Amino acid sequence: MNAPLPFHRLGIAGVGLLGGSLGLALKSRAPRLHIVGIGRSEERLAEALHRGAIDQYTRDPAALDPPLDAVVLCTPVRLVPVSLRSVLPALAPHALVTDVGSTKAGIVRQCEAIAGNAVWFIGSHPIAGSHKTGVQAARANLFHNKICIVTPTPRSHPPALEAVTGLWRFLGMKVICMDPEAHDAFLAVSSHLPHIAAAALCHTAKAKGSRIETLLGTGFRDTTRVAEGDPTLWLDICLENREPLLEALRGYRQVLDNFLSQLERGDEEALFHFLTDAQEWKKRARPR
Amino acid sequence: MNAPLPFHRLGIAGVGLLGGSLGLALKSRAPRLHIVGIGRSEERLAEALHRGAIDQYTRDPAALDPPLDAVVLCTPVRLVPVSLRSVLPALAPHALVTDVGSTKAGIVRQCEAIAGNAVWFIGSHPIAGSHKTGVQAARANLFHNKICIVTPTPRSHPPALEAVTGLWRFLGMKVICMDPEAHDAFLAVSSHLPHIAAAALCHTAKAKGSRIETLLGTGFRDTTRVAEGDPTLWLDICLENREPLLEALRGYRQVLDNFLSQLERGDEEALFHFLTDAQEWKKRARPR
Repeated sequence: MNAPLPFHRLGIAGVGLLGGSLGLALKSRAPRLHIVGIGRSEERLAEALHRGAIDQYTRDPAALDPPLDAVVLCTPVRLVPVSLRSVLPALAPHALVTDVGSTKAGIVRQCEAIAGNAVWFIGSHPIAGSHKTGVQAARANLFHNKICIVTPTPRSHPPALEAVTGLWRFLGMKVICMDPEAHDAFLAVSSHLPHIAAAALCHTAKAKGSRIETLLGTGFRDTTRVAEGDPTLWLDICLENREPLLEALRGYRQVLDNFLSQLERGDEEALFHFLTDAQEWKKRARPR
Repeated sequence: MNAPLPFHRLGIAGVGLLGGSLGLALKSRAPRLHIVGIGRSEERLAEALHRGAIDQYTRDPAALDPPLDAVVLCTPVRLVPVSLRSVLPALAPHALVTDVGSTKAGIVRQCEAIAGNAVWFIGSHPIAGSHKTGVQAARANLFHNKICIVTPTPRSHPPALEAVTGLWRFLGMKVICMDPEAHDAFLAVSSHLPHIAAAALCHTAKAKGSRIETLLGTGFRDTTRVAEGDPTLWLDICLENREPLLEALRGYRQVLDNFLSQLERGDEEALFHFLTDAQEWKKRARPR
């Protein structure tokens, strides 16, 4: 069994797919935890309340009383620091703060600076999601049995790290710790590059004209599924994780260029190795 | 309702995933059709018989008596012409011959030459499959509600074209006709390029070391699913469809290069357009 949660009043800033799912997951496992939704849109907050993801909501966190002893920032990556700044007045001294952003180095650096010694910030990235967005797509089991990367730094307060780790484990996640820069380099390859590769496949197909649309099979469908993701969220991710993504893209282009010249030469042995190595790695690395 | 099939004794050369599924589909809809499996491996042929995909089998088609009035060549693409040559002695005069290969121009050109005026060859490509292989993965509904591209040429005998079209419609497929070269150019983009893009993502991830294997989410999984396909089959496809695939790869590389320089410049507007156009196209072109 997991340890009980070390807080009683928790805020969720941003009640979309991730924030909404977090609320539903926490309410189903800790019904007595009081959850406050924080956001800008009355309509979205009311929808999250209606779905049972939160117990109350506010658009003015500074007016919250009593204060929150923890908050999870679930806004798009470029808004996470802004969002921390706006919830800060609602937080008890040494409250726990974490986020769910897909990029970490920039967020952690800015949020640690904003947190100062008033509250404890530790970055998190639960690897769970969908190309769907909004609290309408939220579900209580979104995080269950998935990986969560937690990114402590030398500034991290050890009890806060333990509490954040405990929060994700409480939801059935497997927690992996690494530094924010390592996280960003890995995710550039495992998540951000595949998104760009998929979007680029869509552009290449689109250039063939509309007739190709009737000829797409399940292979094309799956390979490009992620390209349906919200462009606004993905623009943020690309800009936030620009350098690691550029490096991943350059590596990918090099692999494609090698294949291209092998195919130009008709080098059967090299082509066979390319296909076999990819297949063997894929079989071994089968994600959960 | 579909018209009855215009043949009584049908051969299936190659009883793997596609040949096996074809046998199962035909037996379930036309139980009185007599199906002869033709292949090299006694073990695979016996397994296809055991699973009810064929009624009898032979490794020596020249010895078949009475002859077949139709045959579907379900061998890997580079073996299709060889396979036609070997089944030719088993075919009745003006028997119907088609195939299921993922590439068409080379196959059609060679098979039309081999067929001469003795039998009628028309190329087909049912867009149905899996990264799995073998008769063990065969299923009667593999073709149902899928697209089949049929590739007639000026040499095609109109009644044979009608019979081939009827065969695929009999299995619940939607038939689209186009010339073999157009087929190859489209499939290079819709199927062969996604395979290489997925395999290249695996290579790029592999280069990050084994730690990344624990960090792969459902996005990476789906984007790279096709990379598990049989390298031998895919090597054949790459070589058979070399020129159209090279063109597709060059187009893809150009799209990636444009994105890369937009990201280097931090051109938010261009990046947003890239992501939005891909998303909108993907939503519209949603394959069945």
